[in-house]
Amino acid sequence: MSLTNPVQPIGVAIETRDAYFVSDSTGITAETLGNALLANFPGVRFRRHTVPFVDTVEGAQNVVGSIRSSDSAGGVPIVFTTVKSAKILTELGESGAVMIDLLGGHLRELETSLGSAASEQLGQYHGVGDIERYFARMRAVEYAIEHDDGQSMRALDIADVIIIAPSRCGKTPTTMYLALQYGLLVANYPLTDDDFPADALPRTVAKFAAKCFGLTTTPLRLSQVRHERRPDSTYSSLAQCTLEIRRAEDLYRRNRVPFLNSSTKSVEEMSAVIMQSMRLRS
Amino acid sequence: MSLTNPVQPIGVAIETRDAYFVSDSTGITAETLGNALLANFPGVRFRRHTVPFVDTVEGAQNVVGSIRSSDSAGGVPIVFTTVKSAKILTELGESGAVMIDLLGGHLRELETSLGSAASEQLGQYHGVGDIERYFARMRAVEYAIEHDDGQSMRALDIADVIIIAPSRCGKTPTTMYLALQYGLLVANYPLTDDDFPADALPRTVAKFAAKCFGLTTTPLRLSQVRHERRPDSTYSSLAQCTLEIRRAEDLYRRNRVPFLNSSTKSVEEMSAVIMQSMRLRS
Repeated sequence: MSLTNPVQPIGVAIETRDAYFVSDSTGITAETLGNALLANFPGVRFRRHTVPFVDTVEGAQNVVGSIRSSDSAGGVPIVFTTVKSAKILTELGESGAVMIDLLGGHLRELETSLGSAASEQLGQYHGVGDIERYFARMRAVEYAIEHDDGQSMRALDIADVIIIAPSRCGKTPTTMYLALQYGLLVANYPLTDDDFPADALPRTVAKFAAKCFGLTTTPLRLSQVRHERRPDSTYSSLAQCTLEIRRAEDLYRRNRVPFLNSSTKSVEEMSAVIMQSMRLRS
Repeated sequence: MSLTNPVQPIGVAIETRDAYFVSDSTGITAETLGNALLANFPGVRFRRHTVPFVDTVEGAQNVVGSIRSSDSAGGVPIVFTTVKSAKILTELGESGAVMIDLLGGHLRELETSLGSAASEQLGQYHGVGDIERYFARMRAVEYAIEHDDGQSMRALDIADVIIIAPSRCGKTPTTMYLALQYGLLVANYPLTDDDFPADALPRTVAKFAAKCFGLTTTPLRLSQVRHERRPDSTYSSLAQCTLEIRRAEDLYRRNRVPFLNSSTKSVEEMSAVIMQSMRLRS
């Protein structure tokens, strides 16, 4: 075998680049957008650091210290920032990192378009409507916990959506995401062997058929996910998974329940599809 | 009373501007950053529309139709977009709306800095590590449900953090956010009258004291939140709330449990503080 033309194994990263998400608040916006940007460079490996609550020049100096002391063999570090203060931004720039200012430029665009200056205040969560949003989320999360996996049939009439699916198709995390991010009242109900063979939806949810949304997946994926929980069981066998999925999809179709294959989708994507399909978007 | 100089009531919006969050994926990134930007203009009222999965020119034409038919008395609509395709962006521009391209400019900056071209692929959630992240989130959400409000003492030893607080200080939504967004194993435990007066932490969590994080709030806020659940009860009375908060804060201090006042904080902010304090950030 010749070694003169070594093949780079697939998936081996070429370099590791430090990426900092620096915020004067929680860092969530900086992380979300920064990660969305980095996802466009699958060939580069990034070491991510989130630094929230950098709201003073001293705080910025600490970040600069960390950046300078980091091993930058993979290239100049990159700073994604949502900090608004010019002083703090200038300080961060002293690090020598590539600065990606996620808000600044867009704020200038908005100021022009809206004909008013951006507020100087920090943070985003203290406005009017805060406590209403807090109540809505709290109620929604508690509703989701109470109604997880068919545990309670109480108050299904006020549900915004009832997610139905065989075990391990992603009902619970999707339910929780919809509750937490959007304050929606989401119940979920498992389809078990007892529900098949049947033409109609399980009695408990049948009268709320218009609120039902089904999940499905591929037999292979379901088997893989179930194997996590109960290895080498009938429950996780490919035969059982194939059967349950076929029955569930038949049931959805017969009852005109919209459904979605979760096998290649993230919790965020499933939530977005469900909201769109059930017209739950504002 | 003179009517010649009418006073604008505080809090009345001057105009309503349509803001669209348009994405070729879930719309979450566009919403997150778009809302962070809009929060800087508290004097303007916005009517928000999220349009996910706009990944074809036809999809863009539908959005353009909606934008054109919207009542724009409050000014030209604003489109925040994370769409990457130049064709789709051009089509969206036909709407005449102010276009805020949240990714484009930054992608160019990153291409220069990284010395490689951004991938042409859509979406962000289909890479390696996807299924691991999915498993981690699913496990974390299930752990959070099992351990909500002190329901289970099983497997507290593997918790990343145990949130303790009197009822209605924000334990549950914060727990769920940490689980869902970061895959952390979070238990929460209520401090009730039975736990006071006491010098030590409740026995169940005492041996995991190093994992404990406390929440507190203001008596007024707690009374307000409890009133939502049980109006005009002893439970929601200002006297009872004052007492419980004082006792909880004493307990935290005596046991060196770090704690946080949740009264002016969002779930996101509380989560960020807890992660930083407990060194749970990567």
